[in-house]
Amino acid sequence: MTVRAAVAGASGYAGGEVLRLLLGHPEVEIGALTGHSNAGQRLGALQPQLAPLADRVLQPTTTEALAGHDVVFLALPHGQSAAVAEELGPEVLVVDCGADFRLSDATDWEAFYGSAHAGTWPYGLPELPGGRAALQGTRRIAVPGCYPTAVSLALFPAYADRLAEPEAVIVAATGTSGAGKALKPHLLGSEVMGSMSPYGVGGGHRHTPEMIQNLSAVAGERVSVSFTPTLAPMSRGILATCSAKAKPGVDAAAVRAAYEKALADEPFLRLLPEGQWPSTAAVYGSNTAQIQVTLDAAAGRIIAISAVDNLTKGTAGGAVQSMNIALGLPEETGLPKVGVAP
Amino acid sequence: MTVRAAVAGASGYAGGEVLRLLLGHPEVEIGALTGHSNAGQRLGALQPQLAPLADRVLQPTTTEALAGHDVVFLALPHGQSAAVAEELGPEVLVVDCGADFRLSDATDWEAFYGSAHAGTWPYGLPELPGGRAALQGTRRIAVPGCYPTAVSLALFPAYADRLAEPEAVIVAATGTSGAGKALKPHLLGSEVMGSMSPYGVGGGHRHTPEMIQNLSAVAGERVSVSFTPTLAPMSRGILATCSAKAKPGVDAAAVRAAYEKALADEPFLRLLPEGQWPSTAAVYGSNTAQIQVTLDAAAGRIIAISAVDNLTKGTAGGAVQSMNIALGLPEETGLPKVGVAP
Amino acid sequence: MTVRAAVAGASGYAGGEVLRLLLGHPEVEIGALTGHSNAGQRLGALQPQLAPLADRVLQPTTTEALAGHDVVFLALPHGQSAAVAEELGPEVLVVDCGADFRLSDATDWEAFYGSAHAGTWPYGLPELPGGRAALQGTRRIAVPGCYPTAVSLALFPAYADRLAEPEAVIVAATGTSGAGKALKPHLLGSEVMGSMSPYGVGGGHRHTPEMIQNLSAVAGERVSVSFTPTLAPMSRGILATCSAKAKPGVDAAAVRAAYEKALADEPFLRLLPEGQWPSTAAVYGSNTAQIQVTLDAAAGRIIAISAVDNLTKGTAGGAVQSMNIALGLPEETGLPKVGVAP
Amino acid sequence: MTVRAAVAGASGYAGGEVLRLLLGHPEVEIGALTGHSNAGQRLGALQPQLAPLADRVLQPTTTEALAGHDVVFLALPHGQSAAVAEELGPEVLVVDCGADFRLSDATDWEAFYGSAHAGTWPYGLPELPGGRAALQGTRRIAVPGCYPTAVSLALFPAYADRLAEPEAVIVAATGTSGAGKALKPHLLGSEVMGSMSPYGVGGGHRHTPEMIQNLSAVAGERVSVSFTPTLAPMSRGILATCSAKAKPGVDAAAVRAAYEKALADEPFLRLLPEGQWPSTAAVYGSNTAQIQVTLDAAAGRIIAISAVDNLTKGTAGGAVQSMNIALGLPEETGLPKVGVAP
Repeated sequence: MTVRAAVAGASGYAGGEVLRLLLGHPEVEIGALTGHSNAGQRLGALQPQLAPLADRVLQPTTTEALAGHDVVFLALPHGQSAAVAEELGPEVLVVDCGADFRLSDATDWEAFYGSAHAGTWPYGLPELPGGRAALQGTRRIAVPGCYPTAVSLALFPAYADRLAEPEAVIVAATGTSGAGKALKPHLLGSEVMGSMSPYGVGGGHRHTPEMIQNLSAVAGERVSVSFTPTLAPMSRGILATCSAKAKPGVDAAAVRAAYEKALADEPFLRLLPEGQWPSTAAVYGSNTAQIQVTLDAAAGRIIAISAVDNLTKGTAGGAVQSMNIALGLPEETGLPKVGVAP
Repeated sequence: MTVRAAVAGASGYAGGEVLRLLLGHPEVEIGALTGHSNAGQRLGALQPQLAPLADRVLQPTTTEALAGHDVVFLALPHGQSAAVAEELGPEVLVVDCGADFRLSDATDWEAFYGSAHAGTWPYGLPELPGGRAALQGTRRIAVPGCYPTAVSLALFPAYADRLAEPEAVIVAATGTSGAGKALKPHLLGSEVMGSMSPYGVGGGHRHTPEMIQNLSAVAGERVSVSFTPTLAPMSRGILATCSAKAKPGVDAAAVRAAYEKALADEPFLRLLPEGQWPSTAAVYGSNTAQIQVTLDAAAGRIIAISAVDNLTKGTAGGAVQSMNIALGLPEETGLPKVGVAP
Repeated sequence: MTVRAAVAGASGYAGGEVLRLLLGHPEVEIGALTGHSNAGQRLGALQPQLAPLADRVLQPTTTEALAGHDVVFLALPHGQSAAVAEELGPEVLVVDCGADFRLSDATDWEAFYGSAHAGTWPYGLPELPGGRAALQGTRRIAVPGCYPTAVSLALFPAYADRLAEPEAVIVAATGTSGAGKALKPHLLGSEVMGSMSPYGVGGGHRHTPEMIQNLSAVAGERVSVSFTPTLAPMSRGILATCSAKAKPGVDAAAVRAAYEKALADEPFLRLLPEGQWPSTAAVYGSNTAQIQVTLDAAAGRIIAISAVDNLTKGTAGGAVQSMNIALGLPEETGLPKVGVAP
Repeated sequence: MTVRAAVAGASGYAGGEVLRLLLGHPEVEIGALTGHSNAGQRLGALQPQLAPLADRVLQPTTTEALAGHDVVFLALPHGQSAAVAEELGPEVLVVDCGADFRLSDATDWEAFYGSAHAGTWPYGLPELPGGRAALQGTRRIAVPGCYPTAVSLALFPAYADRLAEPEAVIVAATGTSGAGKALKPHLLGSEVMGSMSPYGVGGGHRHTPEMIQNLSAVAGERVSVSFTPTLAPMSRGILATCSAKAKPGVDAAAVRAAYEKALADEPFLRLLPEGQWPSTAAVYGSNTAQIQVTLDAAAGRIIAISAVDNLTKGTAGGAVQSMNIALGLPEETGLPKVGVAP
C-alpha cells in the first residue's frame, strides 16, 4: 500500500515532526506541504533538519493544494481545522493535530477555547480502553494534546482498576517546543535557558478538561484534576508527575499489578523495572512513553510518572500511530521506539 | 564590627557560594578555607569564579585550621558536622549547611539518614513564625535544606492562617548543583542537558521529614507531605509547586490576604502581583524568594509556587542571613536581592 | 558624591544589566527609566530580577524624562543615540551602550551600518593603552561592543609587544543575550538549546571594523581580522578564541612575559596560571575577564583566549567602569569581580 | 543478507549510538553486548533509550563473547582495541571506534598517545578522495575521530582543488558526549550548562595529527593545523569553523564551484544554499553533515564550516556507513539523514 499524505502547517514544530516521521514511514509518499505566512519559501530554510525535503516549496493552505491525497495532516492553529476539513471528502483521512475536535462537551470547549464547538472526532490515543476500536477505519482523527497524552498514559491503569480517588494532582514540565514556534518574549532562549517557570496555573490550561474527560471515562466517575504546567529549559519532552490518594485498602502490590497488566502488551508504553524512573532524554525523538508508579504509604498517595517526547508520542507520533490503525497498517509502522540519547 | 569567618568544605558548591557572598559582605573577613581531598590545592583551580581568592590554598579540615574565627561555616557531607562542631568553643558561631542538626525528631533522623541523631540546633529560616527570635544571639545554626526552604516559604502563609487541609502535595524541580559536586553518572552534563527526571519518589527523599516538621509547626497540626523532587537541566534554582485542598469556606480573597499579610514586611520574600508567576531565572544568584498563590476553585486546591536559588536563599544566603541575625547585624547585610538575568 | 542616573531603554537586556549594577553602586541614585513600546509598564513585569525596582513604571524616552540627571545611560537600538544625546547638555555624562559613536572612520561606519556617521566619542575600554586617559573627565562615552571587548582584551598584549603578525583569526561563541530581546525565530529557546550555529560569517559582522580599529591602534600597523561569531546554547558569556602567527623569533617565554606585564595591574583582567583556561561560567555576572595565552610552536601561532560576560564586562560593566573613571570615582566602585557559578 | 553484529563497550556513548543505529538497520541482527565494569548489568539500566534491548545483559569483553559474529564493533578506551582484534579471525569485520589504528605515522602516534603504534587500518571516511575504494571488502576499519570527521569534510574540497594555503586554523565546539561517560568534575552538568570553555589548546589535542594526515593527503602537501577545541553546553554536536588563506587569484566563484563539485553526489554531505549556515541542531541524531563555505575577501581567507552529530556521523554513523561499504551493502542502509529538531 502506498499512502499519499499532505501536511498543512508544514513550517511549524508539529508539522515538521510529522514530516520527520513520514520520511521514515515505508508506506507513505509525501505530497503537498502547505503553510500560511511561509508559503513560497523552501522548506530547507524553515526546517533545515529535513534534508531530503529541503528543496520542496510551501504552497498556501488551500483546498486545491490539499486535494488528491489519501491522508491530510492538519498542524494548524486552534480553530482553523474545521473549515479545512469540511472541504476534504469523507473518504480522505484527516488527522487533526490541533485541539478542535478533542472535547466531547461543547460547554467545556466554549469555556476553555472561547469559540463555538466544531464537533468531536475519534480520539487518537489507542492505549486507552476502547481506544483502538474507535480508530479502526475512521477517516477523522483528533490527535490528543501533549499533556493529556502524558497524563492519561500515566494514570489510566490506576483508574481502570479503581485504585485511586477521583482527585488527581498533576505537575508537568514541558520543553519549549510545546509552545510552538511562537515569537513571544518568554520563549526566547535567553529567557528559558537556566529557568523553570509555571504558567496557566489554577485550572486555566486548556488541556485540563481533556485530562478530565479521559480520566473520568476510564474511572467511571468524574475525576477532578489540579494541573500545573511548567516550562523547562529543554527543547523537547514532557515529564508528568501525577498523583491521587489511594482508595482504602489499596497496597503496593495491587498498584504494581494494575500497571503490569495494563501496559504489558503495549508496544509503545514501557513500564520500567521497579526502582528505575523515567527521563525525557530516554524517549527523545521516539514514540515510546516511559512509565513508573509507586505507592507513598506515608502520604497515602499513588505517584505515577510518565515521560514522553511532546512532539513525537505527544503529537506527531501519536498521529501516525493512529493513522496506521485507521488505515489497517501494522500499528508500529514507521515509528521509532528508540530515543536519541544522550 | 569585623567578623572573621572560616569555611570548612570550601571546594564544594555550598562552600563556594558561602564564599561568594562573604566576599561581598562588608563586615566579614575571610579566614581559613579547608577541604578534604582537595587540601593543598589553590582555590582558583577549584572555584575559578572566586577571583579575589584564587591564590588561597585549601588547608585540611582540622581543629587547628578552624580555630581563632568568630564564625565557622560547615559545608561538609552529612554526618561530619557534629565532630567538627564539638571542637569549636561555645563562643564560636557555627553555621552548619549540612543536615545534621535540622530535625528535632530523632526517630525521623534515624529513619531517613541511617545514623544516630546528633541533636537539634536553632533553625535558620527566619521568615517562619518565631524564626528570628530563635536565631538572635545563638552560636549554633542549622541551615535548612534547599527544598524545605522553597516549600516552607511557599506554604507557611496558608497553614498559618488555617486555610489549607493538612495534606500537601509538592513537586519541585531543582538545578543540578543541588546534588553537589558528586561524580555520579546521572549528573554528567550529557545526561542532564535536555532531560527532566524524578528521583527519591514516594516519600524517600530526606527533605520530606523536614518539610513535615516545618509545616506542622506552622499549622498546629500534623501535615502530611507527598514530595516528588525532579532534576532539571539547569545549574541552579528550585521551582516548588505546592498544593493542598482548601479548607471549607476558604475563598480566593482569603488566600490572597493571608499571603499579603505574611509576606508584606519580609525583605527577601516577594509576593508577585496577581497574574505574574515566579521563575528561577529571576532569582538567580540572589537571596530573594519569589512567591505566588492562587485558588483553583474547580479542583478546590490552593496552589502556591516559589522560586529560589538553591545555592543562595536555599543554602548560603540563608546561612548568611541567619548569621547576620545571630550576630546582631542588619539582616540584609551583604545579601543580593537582585537576580542575574537573563 | 551621589550621582543621579537615568537609563533609556530600561526594558532590554543591556538596560536591565546597567540597572542591576547601578542597584549595587554606592554612589548612584537611580532616576528615570524609559522605554519605547513598553512605556507605561511596570518594570517588574519586564525585568523581574530587579526586585527593588519592580514597582517603577517606564516613561517614554523623551528629553523631559531624561532631564535633570548627572548621567544618562543609552541602551537603545543602533542609530537612535545621536538624537537623544544632542538634547542632553554637555555637562551631562552620556554613556552610549550602542554602536553609534564607536568607530572613528566614517567610511567603515557607513559600510557596516548603512547610515551617516554620527561622530566618535571617547572609547570605554580603559584597559587598552591610553584608554583611561581618554575617559578622565569626559562627558561622552562610547561603550565598546561585546565581541570587540573580548577580542581586544585577549590580543592587545601580543600586539602591544609586536609579537604577532597583523592577521588575526577569531572565532567567538556568544550567549543569546548578545542578540538582545529581539523576537526572531532563530533566537527561540527551542532553536538555540542544544545547538551551535555561526552567523555573520565572512567579514560581515558589524563588530569587525571595531576590532580592526582597536588592534591596529595597539599594533601600530593595520591588523586584518577574520571574525566568525557563533551562537551558543547559553544566556550569557563570550568565549573568544583569537590567534595570529607569531612574528619570527618569538618564543613562549616572550608571549607569557608580555601578558604578565600587560595584565598585572588590571583590576578586572585576570591572566590565569599556565595550564588553566577561561570559562564563561567563571565570569558569569561579573566584570572580570579571564585571559589565557599559549604559543602553538608546531603551527607557529599565538593562541589567546578570553572569557567575559557579554552583558557585564561586555556592556553594562564596561559602561559603569568607564563612568567611574569619567566621574573621578574609584574605578572598581560597584562592580562585581566574582562570578556566579556553578 | 543478515549480518550478526557484536558491540564491545556497549555501555558507553559510542557503543550506545552504534546500537541505536543497528536497531534500525534492516540487515543486522544484534548479538553479544559486552562491557567491563558494567558486565552483568541490564542494558536498560545503562542505556534507557534503547527500549528494545532493555533486558539484555552485558557480558564481559572476552574472546568467547565476541566469537561467532560477522561484525564486531569496538567502542573501547584507546589502547585496548589491538588485543581484542588480534583474537578475532581475519574473516570477521572489526570496526574500531577508538583511535588505535587511525594514524599511519608511528611517530605521531607515540607523541600524542604515549604508547607503541598498533598499526594502521583502512580509514572510515568514505567521502575523502579514495575513501570508498579503501573500504570495499576490508575486514578492518578505523573509524575517524569526531573532530577530524567534521574538519576533513569541511576543508577537503578546498584542498582538493588547491584553493587554500597549507595552514589551517580550526576552532570547533563540541557537545559533552564527545568526552564520553567519564566521571570528571568538568563534565558535570552544573559545570557545563551555561558555559563555554576551551581545552587541549596549543596543538596538544590528539585529533590534531589525524587532521593533518587527512588534509595533507588531499592537498598533496603538508598542511599545518592550529586546532582549538571548545566544550559547549549541549549533549551532542560539533560545529567546526575552519579557515585558511586563499591561494593567490582564488575568487568566490572558484570556491563555490569546488564545493559544489565535491559534495554534489554525496548522500550524507549537504552543501547548504548560499547564505544559509549549518547548525548542530539540524543534524541531531542524523548521519548528515551540513557544510557551508565563503570567501572573506577583506581578510583573504576561505571560511568553511561544518556541523555534524559527533556520535552519529562523527562516530557510530560513520562506522555503520563504512561497514555497509565493506560488506557490499548499499551505503545508506539503516542510516538516518533527517535530524531530530527542534
